Amino acid sequence: MKQKLIITIGRQYGSGGRLVGKKLAEALGISFYNREIIELAAQQSGMSEEAFEKVDETAASSLLYSIATGAYMFGNYVSPQVDLPLNDKLFILQSEIIKSVAIKESCVIVGRCADYILKDRKDVINVFIHASKEARKQRAIDEYGIAANKVENYLNKIDKKRSTYYNYYTGEKWGYSTNYQLCLDSSVLGIEGCVHMIESFIHEQSAKTK
Amino acid sequence: MKQKLIITIGRQYGSGGRLVGKKLAEALGISFYNREIIELAAQQSGMSEEAFEKVDETAASSLLYSIATGAYMFGNYVSPQVDLPLNDKLFILQSEIIKSVAIKESCVIVGRCADYILKDRKDVINVFIHASKEARKQRAIDEYGIAANKVENYLNKIDKKRSTYYNYYTGEKWGYSTNYQLCLDSSVLGIEGCVHMIESFIHEQSAKTK
Repeated sequence: MKQKLIITIGRQYGSGGRLVGKKLAEALGISFYNREIIELAAQQSGMSEEAFEKVDETAASSLLYSIATGAYMFGNYVSPQVDLPLNDKLFILQSEIIKSVAIKESCVIVGRCADYILKDRKDVINVFIHASKEARKQRAIDEYGIAANKVENYLNKIDKKRSTYYNYYTGEKWGYSTNYQLCLDSSVLGIEGCVHMIESFIHEQSAKTK
Repeated sequence: MKQKLIITIGRQYGSGGRLVGKKLAEALGISFYNREIIELAAQQSGMSEEAFEKVDETAASSLLYSIATGAYMFGNYVSPQVDLPLNDKLFILQSEIIKSVAIKESCVIVGRCADYILKDRKDVINVFIHASKEARKQRAIDEYGIAANKVENYLNKIDKKRSTYYNYYTGEKWGYSTNYQLCLDSSVLGIEGCVHMIESFIHEQSAKTK
């Protein structure tokens, strides 16, 4: 039987981490999960995909803020048993999907605290992709059409959102090296270089355990 | 002319990062600097190597503490122009040595904020080696003869010392992925695996810039 491969990829905005994951999955001939997890969460819960997209990779707001903004799914304002914010519901659903996907098949999973959710499995490789600010700004302008005069601010905002999300749900520090087995700078290596490095990691790890 | 290679290695205590650096330097046929930098600092300053060793990779203490412990080299208690603490003197000397070594030759430099000291050079590869706590404890017991009942405490103490030293002199966070181009978990890869991964990195980076 071929070795099972589960690779999670955390990534700074504009580092090309999603693309690294996609190309890696293609190269290895295994499944790729990014926004696909939201689709699955929507299907399984019968909730709207659009509603989930709005709170994807966003930490839950405070209780009062959630009530004020109507961010409750099934808010029960009469009973003292208030429902969970949509963010928390999505996190729980995504966690279940990520766990069941990892049981079922080899795959690459991008973002969504997958490294933390799968921390009890011993067969997971956790990767973090980052890049220089200059390279990330350029990618945001070229690939995502962000206006040049707004890119710095946008970058900081998304970084803040992702780190808050990760730190909130895991209690760990997003992007801190010890949370991952491999961290790579894509501005030095390029997308293909990162893919090759993860393939080398799989090879070296397998050589060590033989 | 062969490509110049300057590789800095930051490392958690017990991760085997020093050994990775030594084996890498051997494999590449380039110089290796770890405690050798203290020897050079002692030679160049005419100071005692033992005195330097005591404060190596240790952040400067507060002024009062330094005076109390006699940690001043040429403390002038009469003049208001007090001298620098020994830690700071060593840091400055090491910085000068690291910079001149990097100008002179290809090399691997372990610890001592070399990544930060050489940050203005574009031809440096900064690596951070970490490992699981279990693996680090075992290495500390097996390789450094630390008593099993004291190893946990010892590990935490050295980690704290190294991170305080790095954060104090660089203003950056020790072990945070974005300070390095490559971070590796040696408990998953082994020492040889880490050496191979750094060699792969050099290859991929060179392939990208061609």
